[in-house]
Amino acid sequence: MTLSAVAQSQPQVNLMPMPAGVQAGQGQLAITADFSVSVTGSRDAALDREVQRFQTQLARQTGIFIRPKAGNATLTVHADHAREAIQKLGEDESYELTISSSGAQLNAPTPLGVIRGLQTFLQLVQITPSGFSVPAVTIKDQPRFAWRGTLIDVSRHFIPVDVLKRNLDGMAAVKMNVLHWHLSDDQGFRVESKTFPKLTGMGSEGKFYTQAEIRDVISYAHDRGIRVVPEFDTPGHSRSWFPGYPELASNPGPFTVDNENGPESVTDPTREETYKFMDKFVEGMGKLFPDAYFHIGGDEVNGKYWDSNPKIQAFKQAHGMKTNGDLQAYYNERLQKILAKHHKIMVGWDEILHPDLPKTIVIQSWRGQKSLAIAAQQGYQGLLSYGYYLDLMWPAARHYAVDPMSDAAASLTPEQQKLILGGESCQWAEWVTPENVDSHIWPRNAVVAERLWSPASVKDSASMYERLNAVSLDLEWLGLTHRSARAQMLQRMAGTEDISSLRVLADVVEPVKDYNRWDDAKGPIDFHSPLTHLIDAVYPESDTAREFSALVQTYLQSGMKDQATEKQIRGWLTHWRDNDSRLGPLLSKSSLLQEDVPLSQNLSLVAAAGLQALDYLDHGQTAPDSWKAAQDSMIEDAKKPKAGLLLMVAEPVQQLVDASSHH
Amino acid sequence: MTLSAVAQSQPQVNLMPMPAGVQAGQGQLAITADFSVSVTGSRDAALDREVQRFQTQLARQTGIFIRPKAGNATLTVHADHAREAIQKLGEDESYELTISSSGAQLNAPTPLGVIRGLQTFLQLVQITPSGFSVPAVTIKDQPRFAWRGTLIDVSRHFIPVDVLKRNLDGMAAVKMNVLHWHLSDDQGFRVESKTFPKLTGMGSEGKFYTQAEIRDVISYAHDRGIRVVPEFDTPGHSRSWFPGYPELASNPGPFTVDNENGPESVTDPTREETYKFMDKFVEGMGKLFPDAYFHIGGDEVNGKYWDSNPKIQAFKQAHGMKTNGDLQAYYNERLQKILAKHHKIMVGWDEILHPDLPKTIVIQSWRGQKSLAIAAQQGYQGLLSYGYYLDLMWPAARHYAVDPMSDAAASLTPEQQKLILGGESCQWAEWVTPENVDSHIWPRNAVVAERLWSPASVKDSASMYERLNAVSLDLEWLGLTHRSARAQMLQRMAGTEDISSLRVLADVVEPVKDYNRWDDAKGPIDFHSPLTHLIDAVYPESDTAREFSALVQTYLQSGMKDQATEKQIRGWLTHWRDNDSRLGPLLSKSSLLQEDVPLSQNLSLVAAAGLQALDYLDHGQTAPDSWKAAQDSMIEDAKKPKAGLLLMVAEPVQQLVDASSHH
Repeated sequence: MTLSAVAQSQPQVNLMPMPAGVQAGQGQLAITADFSVSVTGSRDAALDREVQRFQTQLARQTGIFIRPKAGNATLTVHADHAREAIQKLGEDESYELTISSSGAQLNAPTPLGVIRGLQTFLQLVQITPSGFSVPAVTIKDQPRFAWRGTLIDVSRHFIPVDVLKRNLDGMAAVKMNVLHWHLSDDQGFRVESKTFPKLTGMGSEGKFYTQAEIRDVISYAHDRGIRVVPEFDTPGHSRSWFPGYPELASNPGPFTVDNENGPESVTDPTREETYKFMDKFVEGMGKLFPDAYFHIGGDEVNGKYWDSNPKIQAFKQAHGMKTNGDLQAYYNERLQKILAKHHKIMVGWDEILHPDLPKTIVIQSWRGQKSLAIAAQQGYQGLLSYGYYLDLMWPAARHYAVDPMSDAAASLTPEQQKLILGGESCQWAEWVTPENVDSHIWPRNAVVAERLWSPASVKDSASMYERLNAVSLDLEWLGLTHRSARAQMLQRMAGTEDISSLRVLADVVEPVKDYNRWDDAKGPIDFHSPLTHLIDAVYPESDTAREFSALVQTYLQSGMKDQATEKQIRGWLTHWRDNDSRLGPLLSKSSLLQEDVPLSQNLSLVAAAGLQALDYLDHGQTAPDSWKAAQDSMIEDAKKPKAGLLLMVAEPVQQLVDASSHH
Repeated sequence: MTLSAVAQSQPQVNLMPMPAGVQAGQGQLAITADFSVSVTGSRDAALDREVQRFQTQLARQTGIFIRPKAGNATLTVHADHAREAIQKLGEDESYELTISSSGAQLNAPTPLGVIRGLQTFLQLVQITPSGFSVPAVTIKDQPRFAWRGTLIDVSRHFIPVDVLKRNLDGMAAVKMNVLHWHLSDDQGFRVESKTFPKLTGMGSEGKFYTQAEIRDVISYAHDRGIRVVPEFDTPGHSRSWFPGYPELASNPGPFTVDNENGPESVTDPTREETYKFMDKFVEGMGKLFPDAYFHIGGDEVNGKYWDSNPKIQAFKQAHGMKTNGDLQAYYNERLQKILAKHHKIMVGWDEILHPDLPKTIVIQSWRGQKSLAIAAQQGYQGLLSYGYYLDLMWPAARHYAVDPMSDAAASLTPEQQKLILGGESCQWAEWVTPENVDSHIWPRNAVVAERLWSPASVKDSASMYERLNAVSLDLEWLGLTHRSARAQMLQRMAGTEDISSLRVLADVVEPVKDYNRWDDAKGPIDFHSPLTHLIDAVYPESDTAREFSALVQTYLQSGMKDQATEKQIRGWLTHWRDNDSRLGPLLSKSSLLQEDVPLSQNLSLVAAAGLQALDYLDHGQTAPDSWKAAQDSMIEDAKKPKAGLLLMVAEPVQQLVDASSHH
């Protein structure tokens, strides 16, 4: 039995990502007030801080006042040699953790592995009938992919430093190692530039990071084994550069970042001044961000802004460029030379792939594994983000099923597969504020982290959900608010602390998926509009609905004979049927909740239909056709989005209704 | 009709403390993204910060991105003249707030009144069917008492600066104006002393405030209109001084703060060196704390440590002192002279009252209004804390009913009554950590604040509870965790995020009252023991039990005819009866929850008894005597504390059982 096979058969070890190798031992190590850590081998201030953080976190999780006694340490930590001063792609992150009932040993080649191993230890802490403990276990672990990141968009809605930091803590807890910081887009330029102060002066509405704050975040991330790769999106998604520097634009302004109905444009790649600007810009930002990689965006360039400029058309003609793609390739090629001059490796989205660019660049794919396969066949490195867009509101299992090496990438040669470095989840910020961003990222981000760290064979979604619940709890102890923020948002909507009936509704709905929250017919999004509706507060995935659906499947598969399960189903349905009479009056009093009145009524109707279906089934009756037709029609309506929300229990109730009418 | 009578008849205005005068107007003022504030009259940096905080808080409560447009301000704030640089006792805190549908005006003699009025405005913000708004209203307000404080003990368990700050925010929200900072006691000395560094060096286990932190907290409090009065308890409650300075003690050491079983003592008042020490000490602390008042404690001096020292006995004899009270009076008299030399007014607990002390001192009573009355009759000023001890776990209504001017104080002459300056709630820290301290203070502290600010006629407890719910919600928006921390603590105990069944139990229990959590038979409290049990997480007062009890009263008073109420009662009872089958397995898995198994079982049994009683009543039957006797016995047992917790729904169920057996 291989170690990873053991891991698969040990669901009681609530680790996420699942280590490469887990060997269960005998007994457990008690966590008491005497708990202590000793450090041997290579040691630096960052490692000492990490050990201190570990102990603080252990005390927080358990509530124990840890006051180590003299004597043997409970946990001995050892790193063979120092880590890189600037964290490198592919730097060794492996570690070995051995826990017995008498003590624990964590060994790693460098402190980077220690950082990973200490997080594993924290996840192992559990409450038992005899106190807090960690199970005896031997873990040998290293990542499958070297690049495991999260993109956080701070342009469309600004995310302050403290919120970023707690998300970095979350990333470290699940062993992610890249913060892809999407720092500029149409709606805001978020980094102080000493060379070009009008970038934030006129392009940020005052919401940006000073250079000191940037350095602070980079240092914070480094302590946690996380690289910071900045993205400055260009030549598209760049309106925020133009209020201060309209000469960069392909079209006349004046531009603002606060008016989505005002003039739009993209960067003009035909003017030499643009390259002089970018040279100085990259020089400054390149020094601020020490990472070897520098992301230039390059996605979704709207050619109409070039087409409408006669000078740009003339330039294309003069240079024999047929398409706007050619023009963008020209821009990227020149930009790549500027990056190289400042010792940076270019990263960009699918659209930058072009044979004129050197093989050092990295293609990040929002389009799919096929882009990566095409790039790899041409010798380019790649990162997968398709399938990991957290803003699409997919259930965790759907993200979890996406593998960088699957689909088109599966047919690559082993050499070509090595070019696929990993992937990144993406948190685009159209619909988040500091208040709800955590719940859009967590806990689902942990399953992307597992996909990129753990062996490809770790893919059972039932085990994943079980472990996800455990890691979600750990993440809240880090200060993330992905669960706790909802209550406060619901209280704001309701104007009262007593939100029990509103919580019942919130527990069974999910936001509409993909980009269905908005369409062009509504005009541009107002990025200053409050995000305070029910759709903004609910979790992307309803655990309650998923668990209810599982109960219904169990019941149906038992041939409607499993009475214990039926009792649970009836419990839920009764709760939901009766909820609207309590919730209705609350909804009508609040401008933020009135839109949810039909949703609450539908929950009640759907639940009543489910109970009636169970009554027919219990009595061995076949539901009348007329009743069935009426319920089908009602449920069909209930499945349609209301106030941007989907009633996730409608489908399993439909299954009960169907079962009750089978002849 | 007087303005305060109007206040009594306007329960829909969710203000706490209720202003002295409230006159309802017509319509409401909408809170929109255009909301703006202008400041006229006397203006300083602190007032500007206050206005900025007000706007931040308004944005947080409503979720609106406030981006004021040019034009007339929504709210105009005006202060006639500057406030004192160091806030004085009795400084004018009055304000007038006028809100109409077109705008609002806040006028006050000084920025101190503006601070109070802005908090009133924030409390008025409510969600309505047409958005957030404040009702049109005219408020003329000033406090009843000049000294309205909260004592926070940071010695027995250390409370970090960030936790203190959010509690200062809470105090400001309910217009309290004194933080009584209990900075030293047997278990820890918490302020850096430049003169005597061993006070914290050997008496704090490393948990103390630097002088910079002290200054920061004082400045933070001043911005919010709060004075900071330090207390250094002496000659009793002073073990923490002795590890570093054993010569101050009346008995030989060695002393430590971390060993409750080690030597104890009190300060030796017979040595001249003690006064030299105190002179230098008061000089340093007097400069650090700018307030005119300085609290020397003086409570609960255990005379046995003086009795066992022959030198002290000889001193008493030589000076003709008959009792240890005489010796303490001698100490206080000398200490008062030291305080006076350093321009400080002495405050102390009941025990310091002695005719040899000047009339400037202030007596703070933990014993009752009688102490204040006796002091006032002798010309001394007083503060009431008896009845406001938040650590006794009383329901809000019980604190609310205590008035400084009642009982013995009621018979004082008007001139004597003026000597009663106000009062202070007290948060003694035997059983709190930074994690749960907020829930021990809030929201109950708001009713003490109302008692001390509002007219004496404001005393209806039904209105109080209604408004307390509203203010509790506002307090959470300040960052206080009095409601939110419980979920995380329950999750720690349960080891899972799904704590719904545990919450059901937590909602109907309260900690034992007064000092019944601990008795001397158990030995001294271990102050390093984790506070992570259910008793540490639950709220001091169960809203659910109080509301259930009210339902039962309504039902019984209707002659068991109110069917709608009976349905609600049955709903609760069914919920509780069925809870143990879900909760039981969870409890048995956790070392922290096993002690609650009988509690959960009792909830189930009690609820079943209530349902059976309702069945008898519904069927017009008289419950059999044997059944009644069995239920009486079961409920009597269920009322006994289990794991330090009281099952608060046992009593109303007993009433149902009694009703069902009436012949």
